[in-house]
Amino acid sequence: MYQFQCDYAEGAHPLILRKLEETNFQQTAGYGNDIYCERAREKIRKLCGNEHADVHFLVGGTQTNFTVISGVLRPHQGVVAASTGHINIHETGAVEATGHKVLTIPSENGKITAEQVRACYEAHWSDEAHEHIVQPGMVYISHPTENGTLYSKKELEELKKTCTGLGLPLFLDGARMGYGLMSEASTLTLADIAELTDVFYIGGTKVGALFGEAVIITNPSLGKDFRYLMKQRGGMLAKGRLLGIQFDVLFENELYFDIAKHADDLAMRLKNAFIKKGYRLRYDSYTNQQFPILPNKHIEKLRGNYSFEFWEAVGDTHSAVRFCTSWATGEDAVNALIQDIEAL
Amino acid sequence: MYQFQCDYAEGAHPLILRKLEETNFQQTAGYGNDIYCERAREKIRKLCGNEHADVHFLVGGTQTNFTVISGVLRPHQGVVAASTGHINIHETGAVEATGHKVLTIPSENGKITAEQVRACYEAHWSDEAHEHIVQPGMVYISHPTENGTLYSKKELEELKKTCTGLGLPLFLDGARMGYGLMSEASTLTLADIAELTDVFYIGGTKVGALFGEAVIITNPSLGKDFRYLMKQRGGMLAKGRLLGIQFDVLFENELYFDIAKHADDLAMRLKNAFIKKGYRLRYDSYTNQQFPILPNKHIEKLRGNYSFEFWEAVGDTHSAVRFCTSWATGEDAVNALIQDIEAL
Amino acid sequence: MYQFQCDYAEGAHPLILRKLEETNFQQTAGYGNDIYCERAREKIRKLCGNEHADVHFLVGGTQTNFTVISGVLRPHQGVVAASTGHINIHETGAVEATGHKVLTIPSENGKITAEQVRACYEAHWSDEAHEHIVQPGMVYISHPTENGTLYSKKELEELKKTCTGLGLPLFLDGARMGYGLMSEASTLTLADIAELTDVFYIGGTKVGALFGEAVIITNPSLGKDFRYLMKQRGGMLAKGRLLGIQFDVLFENELYFDIAKHADDLAMRLKNAFIKKGYRLRYDSYTNQQFPILPNKHIEKLRGNYSFEFWEAVGDTHSAVRFCTSWATGEDAVNALIQDIEAL
Amino acid sequence: MYQFQCDYAEGAHPLILRKLEETNFQQTAGYGNDIYCERAREKIRKLCGNEHADVHFLVGGTQTNFTVISGVLRPHQGVVAASTGHINIHETGAVEATGHKVLTIPSENGKITAEQVRACYEAHWSDEAHEHIVQPGMVYISHPTENGTLYSKKELEELKKTCTGLGLPLFLDGARMGYGLMSEASTLTLADIAELTDVFYIGGTKVGALFGEAVIITNPSLGKDFRYLMKQRGGMLAKGRLLGIQFDVLFENELYFDIAKHADDLAMRLKNAFIKKGYRLRYDSYTNQQFPILPNKHIEKLRGNYSFEFWEAVGDTHSAVRFCTSWATGEDAVNALIQDIEAL
Repeated sequence: MYQFQCDYAEGAHPLILRKLEETNFQQTAGYGNDIYCERAREKIRKLCGNEHADVHFLVGGTQTNFTVISGVLRPHQGVVAASTGHINIHETGAVEATGHKVLTIPSENGKITAEQVRACYEAHWSDEAHEHIVQPGMVYISHPTENGTLYSKKELEELKKTCTGLGLPLFLDGARMGYGLMSEASTLTLADIAELTDVFYIGGTKVGALFGEAVIITNPSLGKDFRYLMKQRGGMLAKGRLLGIQFDVLFENELYFDIAKHADDLAMRLKNAFIKKGYRLRYDSYTNQQFPILPNKHIEKLRGNYSFEFWEAVGDTHSAVRFCTSWATGEDAVNALIQDIEAL
Repeated sequence: MYQFQCDYAEGAHPLILRKLEETNFQQTAGYGNDIYCERAREKIRKLCGNEHADVHFLVGGTQTNFTVISGVLRPHQGVVAASTGHINIHETGAVEATGHKVLTIPSENGKITAEQVRACYEAHWSDEAHEHIVQPGMVYISHPTENGTLYSKKELEELKKTCTGLGLPLFLDGARMGYGLMSEASTLTLADIAELTDVFYIGGTKVGALFGEAVIITNPSLGKDFRYLMKQRGGMLAKGRLLGIQFDVLFENELYFDIAKHADDLAMRLKNAFIKKGYRLRYDSYTNQQFPILPNKHIEKLRGNYSFEFWEAVGDTHSAVRFCTSWATGEDAVNALIQDIEAL
Repeated sequence: MYQFQCDYAEGAHPLILRKLEETNFQQTAGYGNDIYCERAREKIRKLCGNEHADVHFLVGGTQTNFTVISGVLRPHQGVVAASTGHINIHETGAVEATGHKVLTIPSENGKITAEQVRACYEAHWSDEAHEHIVQPGMVYISHPTENGTLYSKKELEELKKTCTGLGLPLFLDGARMGYGLMSEASTLTLADIAELTDVFYIGGTKVGALFGEAVIITNPSLGKDFRYLMKQRGGMLAKGRLLGIQFDVLFENELYFDIAKHADDLAMRLKNAFIKKGYRLRYDSYTNQQFPILPNKHIEKLRGNYSFEFWEAVGDTHSAVRFCTSWATGEDAVNALIQDIEAL
Repeated sequence: MYQFQCDYAEGAHPLILRKLEETNFQQTAGYGNDIYCERAREKIRKLCGNEHADVHFLVGGTQTNFTVISGVLRPHQGVVAASTGHINIHETGAVEATGHKVLTIPSENGKITAEQVRACYEAHWSDEAHEHIVQPGMVYISHPTENGTLYSKKELEELKKTCTGLGLPLFLDGARMGYGLMSEASTLTLADIAELTDVFYIGGTKVGALFGEAVIITNPSLGKDFRYLMKQRGGMLAKGRLLGIQFDVLFENELYFDIAKHADDLAMRLKNAFIKKGYRLRYDSYTNQQFPILPNKHIEKLRGNYSFEFWEAVGDTHSAVRFCTSWATGEDAVNALIQDIEAL
């Protein structure tokens, strides 16, 4: 049984484990004030083309999302997000637990547009009773989205321009950042993303690390006292160096990018196998998540050898499912799966 | 420069790293639903002498504290704690950020008594205006305390009896649990603690793990939906097996206890060296934290070779400081420090 | 210029003012512990046919909603409501500010069905990842709804039965309760509502009082410590007797019902005038709010003499608008308005 | 039985009731957007000597406190207050329920000093681990205090200067403002207070109104979107004019000041009677609350004819108690009480 269920089924890239071992008995300061965090910060700033960016390391995605969002908003403000956004759906109301509403914009493929953001903003301010309504206070997007889709550079430029014009900080959830950057369909670099957002994060958990998300704050007005917020929300790891070491390794010699490309390549091979077989796709993804629509009986058959996620029913006879590859996915497993797809 | 600054200056026990490496490419379910977490749970239940205890693994102490506390209390209730308690002092108001006041009881040495808890409870309910005052809803203690002190079995029995009588769940923060259990002054076993609290945790971060705290819920009424709370508060690790693996290793062949004893033994050697030299102690600790009161000029001298924490001024010429040993502290370093103390 | 803009444009029924004056220099205990509150409670319990109901008086609707809801839910739970519900739309995220998500059910006319509630509940629990999703913890409905519509006795019975079966307390927002009870389309009495909900409130602000909402808790498990919650959320009026006096007057000699009927009768006359003129209605309301769809040029004309609320555009040439009557609306004003409608 | 128990035992000044009656059937806009609120705002701005101040009307003190405080602070910040402060003691943790810790400064008489504030601030920032500690974000004082004491102009100047220097907004709770301003010991005018704070409120509930607190925001950076916060926290009254009318009447012809002086004069007569009788005073109050220390047997005797509040035991035989006068207290009642005191 091989898992294509998610992109966090294995441990970490071996180079990370090796480095953890090499440094294990070094004594360092806690809470991110160590040399490894500092090195990782430097590398990330360089990749982002922004020497002044604030870089912080947190443990997980949900934690990062609610820490950033609750740090930006005032009590009466909400965060604008796609209805499909992770914060709206899959974080057990973590954002609401910090006191803020998620203001949803309908989305078919996980993305939202600059026009939708503007419309949402204007609907608020044109309402005479706007003081009775949650005020849009920032915008949250995912890249890649939860549906594997990508913003183009042009789309992100428009979003950023609109957000800036409206005074709404733009926050990008990059839990699967690597798979976005290395996609054959990508038109964005890390430096682009750093320039076109106010704060974002680079996911480690799903791209080679044991755990960890690197938050980059490029809008200085949002960085004030961020370490207090991290501590209060449980996101400041005592042995912070564990995060520094992991990101230091990931951004040494392009490791992060290479392993992400590996996953994307395998995912595209899967995608082509599904298409070749005549299956439709629920979303047109060029990243490590693929969403074919299969006959239910074929799903049953594949479940004999592979685990993957049920996504949603499509009529009575078909369902969309999700296959994930990751930095750790083996070529052999993908080859075998493709053979089994062809044989369906 | 050797660090006695804290008990989380190094990585993890090598057996943990080895196990992480061995299991690295195994594919497991996420979020704690894996075989390693299950094994660790079994071991912990056994050590606790409670087959039915709920066991969950979270990443850090602050997170664990606010997740447990906010899960137990209703909105108008507060948590009773020593004024010195970690939740009151060193968690950036994490408990308050979930909406609850910390109701403090004055403490000289980190401990609170059953009588104090009863007095606090009765003061509340005997006030005619009690509805205008935060209602005591649970009790939080640390063991060992932030001052290195320990509850005796008798003291904990009295606390538990009082809490049960008053309807207040008793929560024990065991961030340094190992150092308490293995102290020469300890009169409590893990099974005692499991029996004499409603919920507690066994700290990994400070006792041999990279990170991780094992929450044990013995009062079934407190366990309902705990995994939702973990997820919402950012405490549910995607690769939950990392926690399971660590606790599985720590509770294999008594490793957790052996390495804690190592730290305690070294700490007692330090303690004796301070006493022999004629220094007073700020708290009479039999665990891995020692709090001697030194002349400021001696502090200066020791700072040349060692890092340790300033605790508080004692008059104009002396200060209390904190030296921590840990599972990772080297005997050589302690020997050298003792020589330097003797030479002061 | 006559206001049909809202149902809180005037002060209070003169009998209330008279009673405030008569009792003005009496000295009473504060915070609702006075004879007038007690009298009002007794009357309300009697009308509800429930001697054991807990009755509390709060100042306003938003306050009442978030106090009740945050008192019922645990942190990971949300409140199920119509997408059109007041708590979802017009309370500036007050519920979210207490930490809870509003889980919306699509609604065309302000109502939700038992089937929808069951589907929402089942969708949650059938999701394998349900711990990552906000758990439905209670159900909120408005009666009359924000669209003037009414639940029938059968519908409410089904809702209650479903909610009870699923373990979800049912909370009914009765900000306009009087106008619902006295509607010619009503099939529910106050006693029915008391029986078919777990907690509800009878609105005073919009039905004859200066301000005030009477919360009735019939499910004893929800009443514990409610006065603490009121105090904490700012809902416990120092001179609580002001609320007691008002509800005591309103429920003396059926005043509350008589003045509500007055408003409903006038609203039905307006409704018929709109229908007779050939206008469609946005919602088929039999209560004090009427929502005709008018040509925009007619709206302009009417705005010369009357204020009323723009509701939403209906195509390019028409709009739905809202006219409210209230206990205070004058017959002359309605006569004049009807003449003006006929003359359009 | 005459009540000296509190200063909110009666209704409102008759001129307020008269005005409510006169205006009862006028139709006004809701939520504070009416002519009466506007008039009251103008009068208050004039009295404060600040044409640009933001003035808002809320219903009660607890509500006002948590709305203002949660609007000013960021999540990791707390409010500095006297240990005796109302927000710390008697609001059921309302501030904590919005996510913020109350950082207490020990106080013997209800007041805190500029030096204490500075020390609190410096203790925070000089701690190396300050990110682990709640950051002081604003300062809360009461005037008069809960103990009846007053800040002198010099003391308030120093507080303001210190707060400004440290970047801490200063918030003054004026629930009993009138009794402070009209005290024979007062050295402060309303204009002084407006100048020497960033935000404060003038209490109506305890000084002649049915209810209501007027918030004055003089620091423009704190006023942004305050109406959203009011709505979200349940503090925006639908019939906002009720608040406007009351403050309009209170600030017509100095009514507010005259009735406050009446209460202060009676309180001073009581104070002198206690002193003359040889009783000590728990606090040296020159306002409407008096705190004599009486033999318990004398307390018993007085309880036959008067209600008043037990404050605290003073040894085994005596207790401090609280007598309140108010705008409504009758001279006859005070005369009778004085006779009874003399006769003890």
